[in-house]
Amino acid sequence: MAGNTFGHLFRISTFGESHGKAIGVIIDGCPSNVDIDLEFIQAELDKRRPGQSKITTQRKESDTASVLSGVFEGKSTGTSLALLIPNEDQRSKDYDHNKDIFRPSHADYTYQEKYGIRDYRGGGRSSARETAARVAAGAVAKLFLKQKGIEIFAHVSSAGKVDAPNLPSEDLSKLLEIRESNIVRCADPATANEMIELIDSVRKDGDTIGGKVSCIIRNCPVGLGEPVFDKLHADLGKAMLSINAVHGFEYGSGFSGSEMRGSEHNDIFRPSEAGSGVSTSTNFSGGIQGGISNGMDITFRVAFKPVATIMHNQQTIDKEGNAAEIKGKGRHDPCVVPRAVAIVEAMAALVIADHYLRQAAYQH
Amino acid sequence: MAGNTFGHLFRISTFGESHGKAIGVIIDGCPSNVDIDLEFIQAELDKRRPGQSKITTQRKESDTASVLSGVFEGKSTGTSLALLIPNEDQRSKDYDHNKDIFRPSHADYTYQEKYGIRDYRGGGRSSARETAARVAAGAVAKLFLKQKGIEIFAHVSSAGKVDAPNLPSEDLSKLLEIRESNIVRCADPATANEMIELIDSVRKDGDTIGGKVSCIIRNCPVGLGEPVFDKLHADLGKAMLSINAVHGFEYGSGFSGSEMRGSEHNDIFRPSEAGSGVSTSTNFSGGIQGGISNGMDITFRVAFKPVATIMHNQQTIDKEGNAAEIKGKGRHDPCVVPRAVAIVEAMAALVIADHYLRQAAYQH
Amino acid sequence: MAGNTFGHLFRISTFGESHGKAIGVIIDGCPSNVDIDLEFIQAELDKRRPGQSKITTQRKESDTASVLSGVFEGKSTGTSLALLIPNEDQRSKDYDHNKDIFRPSHADYTYQEKYGIRDYRGGGRSSARETAARVAAGAVAKLFLKQKGIEIFAHVSSAGKVDAPNLPSEDLSKLLEIRESNIVRCADPATANEMIELIDSVRKDGDTIGGKVSCIIRNCPVGLGEPVFDKLHADLGKAMLSINAVHGFEYGSGFSGSEMRGSEHNDIFRPSEAGSGVSTSTNFSGGIQGGISNGMDITFRVAFKPVATIMHNQQTIDKEGNAAEIKGKGRHDPCVVPRAVAIVEAMAALVIADHYLRQAAYQH
Amino acid sequence: MAGNTFGHLFRISTFGESHGKAIGVIIDGCPSNVDIDLEFIQAELDKRRPGQSKITTQRKESDTASVLSGVFEGKSTGTSLALLIPNEDQRSKDYDHNKDIFRPSHADYTYQEKYGIRDYRGGGRSSARETAARVAAGAVAKLFLKQKGIEIFAHVSSAGKVDAPNLPSEDLSKLLEIRESNIVRCADPATANEMIELIDSVRKDGDTIGGKVSCIIRNCPVGLGEPVFDKLHADLGKAMLSINAVHGFEYGSGFSGSEMRGSEHNDIFRPSEAGSGVSTSTNFSGGIQGGISNGMDITFRVAFKPVATIMHNQQTIDKEGNAAEIKGKGRHDPCVVPRAVAIVEAMAALVIADHYLRQAAYQH
Repeated sequence: MAGNTFGHLFRISTFGESHGKAIGVIIDGCPSNVDIDLEFIQAELDKRRPGQSKITTQRKESDTASVLSGVFEGKSTGTSLALLIPNEDQRSKDYDHNKDIFRPSHADYTYQEKYGIRDYRGGGRSSARETAARVAAGAVAKLFLKQKGIEIFAHVSSAGKVDAPNLPSEDLSKLLEIRESNIVRCADPATANEMIELIDSVRKDGDTIGGKVSCIIRNCPVGLGEPVFDKLHADLGKAMLSINAVHGFEYGSGFSGSEMRGSEHNDIFRPSEAGSGVSTSTNFSGGIQGGISNGMDITFRVAFKPVATIMHNQQTIDKEGNAAEIKGKGRHDPCVVPRAVAIVEAMAALVIADHYLRQAAYQH
Repeated sequence: MAGNTFGHLFRISTFGESHGKAIGVIIDGCPSNVDIDLEFIQAELDKRRPGQSKITTQRKESDTASVLSGVFEGKSTGTSLALLIPNEDQRSKDYDHNKDIFRPSHADYTYQEKYGIRDYRGGGRSSARETAARVAAGAVAKLFLKQKGIEIFAHVSSAGKVDAPNLPSEDLSKLLEIRESNIVRCADPATANEMIELIDSVRKDGDTIGGKVSCIIRNCPVGLGEPVFDKLHADLGKAMLSINAVHGFEYGSGFSGSEMRGSEHNDIFRPSEAGSGVSTSTNFSGGIQGGISNGMDITFRVAFKPVATIMHNQQTIDKEGNAAEIKGKGRHDPCVVPRAVAIVEAMAALVIADHYLRQAAYQH
Repeated sequence: MAGNTFGHLFRISTFGESHGKAIGVIIDGCPSNVDIDLEFIQAELDKRRPGQSKITTQRKESDTASVLSGVFEGKSTGTSLALLIPNEDQRSKDYDHNKDIFRPSHADYTYQEKYGIRDYRGGGRSSARETAARVAAGAVAKLFLKQKGIEIFAHVSSAGKVDAPNLPSEDLSKLLEIRESNIVRCADPATANEMIELIDSVRKDGDTIGGKVSCIIRNCPVGLGEPVFDKLHADLGKAMLSINAVHGFEYGSGFSGSEMRGSEHNDIFRPSEAGSGVSTSTNFSGGIQGGISNGMDITFRVAFKPVATIMHNQQTIDKEGNAAEIKGKGRHDPCVVPRAVAIVEAMAALVIADHYLRQAAYQH
Repeated sequence: MAGNTFGHLFRISTFGESHGKAIGVIIDGCPSNVDIDLEFIQAELDKRRPGQSKITTQRKESDTASVLSGVFEGKSTGTSLALLIPNEDQRSKDYDHNKDIFRPSHADYTYQEKYGIRDYRGGGRSSARETAARVAAGAVAKLFLKQKGIEIFAHVSSAGKVDAPNLPSEDLSKLLEIRESNIVRCADPATANEMIELIDSVRKDGDTIGGKVSCIIRNCPVGLGEPVFDKLHADLGKAMLSINAVHGFEYGSGFSGSEMRGSEHNDIFRPSEAGSGVSTSTNFSGGIQGGISNGMDITFRVAFKPVATIMHNQQTIDKEGNAAEIKGKGRHDPCVVPRAVAIVEAMAALVIADHYLRQAAYQH
């Protein structure tokens, strides 16, 4: 109820501050007998960790996860699975100047007002460092979904106004390979170069820029999603909007669908061929109809605002409401989307795993 | 878990099919001593009910709500508050042709696959008729929020490609008056006319069109929203995405914020004046920072796809996967947004009421 | 969170006051394709309804349940299943004397203090009339469990100090027949007569008496119950303790087990015979080990206090805290256990159905 | 949903196996600005830890808790509060003989069947070692409740058939002093000696014995508890029944109340005196009426079965269902109640803290 818990049947609770001892997560509801591949979990964390490239923050965290419980001889036991990631490179001194001042478009003011106390070091609990715990838990969810043949793939589809073209129809493993071959994590190599150039130039200005991440979920069985309120896309939307800096979510045709006519937008069912499920000629529905997956690719897009910490002087106020001036210190990302790709995938995996189990519950 | 429940402390469970005996809602968590103004509840329902104008469906439902429990001498008692809305004008015969066929971009196929059974009459549980129960419950939430001075206002900001300009800074009661003076529920009268013309022409084509609803929540206290996962905008997003036909949600700067630089996007805090809370010079944050309300107007926008039922012949498949043809029957909306305004407000009220109580819980 | 909801996957929310328009329940989570046998539901309600015999309250309620949603052509559809039971024989006038006075050992004082308002007519929401909604929902749960072969049987094992002997090893259907052949619902005919005599004599004194109900759940599959906190017996205990007037719960060896030695108390596993599951030579564990069902009979016992309304003059206080005198009016039970048998079975069915679905969720 | 989470607003999730790296807990919902007194938390853990005396297991665990998050400068911040307790003295080898065999009246068989895998070392997750995490979390709840003046006191009221007399009316701090002066934790010194003698003799026999713990909650405000299903005693009952080895729960008059008449059992309200709340002449209600606290002492009693591990040869079966023989190894308690006192208090504190916040939520 205090908001550090996500999911129902595949449920996670995360903890940890940017400059505390450690961050971590308990998974309460991982089914038993899932292969817990620690190398895979670490590889996922590596995609999110800071210090990867010139266009990410230079904070050095190895983000090494260890399992505290719930795994026996390499397999999940069905009991609470706890993962711990110690903090290593805290430079809390960098944040002394934040103690009594509110950074613009950060959570300093609202945390102070809500709680009457705040751990101001590096943003405390409001820091995006918290998302490492999500990636670790999401990696476990992915290991579960892998057993079911469900694949999840996200990439950077926009940085500022630089937009990638629609992806070619392709194996997701192939797109993943392309995506991982560039530091901005865009699956279109030409656009990737443009994006990197943009972000690097923004960084040199001491400024930041927003972007978008697009995601595909493939081989999702028909039937996931619980009408009326827990529609699959509603839970995906909540998951994405809970990620730091996200300001928008759309699935299928999204905002552009609101400009279309029904006669264009309707996805026409195609007669089934032997051995194949039902399919539609277009996919404006984004793989979800009536809140329930229909077996087509689930597609959605997430908009991230620019990072609030910039290396410019900004006017603001202090705790007493007096005018003050602030300039960004610490180590920050000029653009979050390259690291956010892993977070989007993790949250998608958590939603799908949760709904997979929910659907299983009622298939008596 | 099966998805008919929304909220935690101010929690609703809805029931009812399009062509069943009745629809309704239980509110489990309405605080005691709220004035339950039945006329207000009815007035809210009247904004959503069918048959209001030439640009809405012609199904005739009075949507009269009665209270079954939880109210004593005009006030809520703190116990379950049940509201019942009988169905009146069912023409189930209109749907016999749907029994064995899947309408494109409807929930027929996914419900059939998920449940192995479906009430095909009027879409059964997947019908937007279900949202009447939300509006009734939302009206109760509004009565609670009214006691706290919190106001909620939505209007149609786009129909197809016809967009309303930004609203003038104005009392919400004044904007409400303008909005209710036209049948499309847009608070800009000139745009309203254009929109009505568009929708009417689409209707005459036997087609449908999408649109957008924009919403403002004013006088929300600082501190609502629970980081990390239950950020206020994440719960608003989920609420909106759970409404039939919604394909996108954005708050504050939204998707356009992803194209901006931090130096433009940051909302600069202004020194407090006597008697006033903190304010910011711009409001790209949409009244929410770190997932917590900051006292500024909360602003968001919701994208609705075009209604799937059109009066054209369409190719589709039957239950056996064979090719079939379908043509819309029944009475349907050419565009949902005029009636959706009441639903968006209701869901917003439910989210804010829930978070109001959550915040109260921890203010010991 | 306000307490009118029970269960997670097979979740019910109840509503209604003793003297309101109706009581009822929404089941959110009944799996699809369960045969909804209305006669069975009504027969269950008949076992709980008032006015059955000389040893129950004389209030006349037919307790006729109707289905408002969630059933199509006799089968559950997987969507919210709402059941409505109108109130018929309210004599609210009988309760005018309660308006400003607190009845001893009733909920008048605590409701008034908690909510600042109370529907004093017949106890309002605190009335045991609310349990009719539980019995209706429990009947649906039983119909689901019947498909799985799971049987639930309860009977009155004590009235005051009159205790029934242990039941013979017998088919539950046979025990049910015996139980229903007497008005006190004890499966031992000789004891039943003694109990009836006791209760009738207590009634003639204008007094009331407590009692106990014992319950057996048979053919429950191995594996239901979620350690650590949601042990099967913990959820059964909560369910039973939530029934009006219940003051105690024990399972298996219960309180007497606390006086035993491990060497006596341990249930020795017996080697499996072909075609049979594992069994134990004794069943002090009550069919549950480590919070998880082991396939043996689940056995528990529930203690009910005497009804608080007696036909004697009693000292008490009024709303201002002044001394006052009260004498029971209205129509009340001299002993609740004969009618409570149906409630105990219903709550047991709801717990088992919920845990059945929970277990199914993780059996991927 | 998988059962490792307890509470709603003051919610805990625990993790850890008997022989894993560590056990611990996340508290999601501790209000901000609670003084987190680590010495107090440790002192609570010391009352539960093994190796305290000759009548407890000889396993040596210091049970040292450290805070990983949620505390800043000695105070709770309102964000997830994580506590970690490393395991130290695992002798996993002691459990090799359990790998393929099911210990009678343990959770070996049911875990194996439920999950298809089990960490057999020391009982894995089914070990009572898990309760250390509850005691740590309960200590935080106590620190919160202390700020509200609410006190919780439990003691051993029975060991086997040795029963303590009713406690004198006395300050709880005084009773606590007496209780802590003897190793069995009974607040009646004469009975304590008898109990110790009994347990020691049982221990010498290689056997075990059950017992009971009684608990008093004092200064609980009027109004805690949510009818209908979340009655305060129902949640206390569930909490207690979730503790390993508990087989029964009763509050107020409990099982003996079921043998009484209403005219004896009713608690008569006494006119208020200046400056005092309402009180009753007797307290058979155990401080709870209609599921809601009435301001009187809340009293309940918990029955523990004898520990299943005994140092005798016992018949059992192996994983294949074949007859086998087992003899207890490892280090075990001859009677759990002396250590269970701290667990009962912790769980009571968690329930009261949760309901305190729930009540606060609705007191708008």
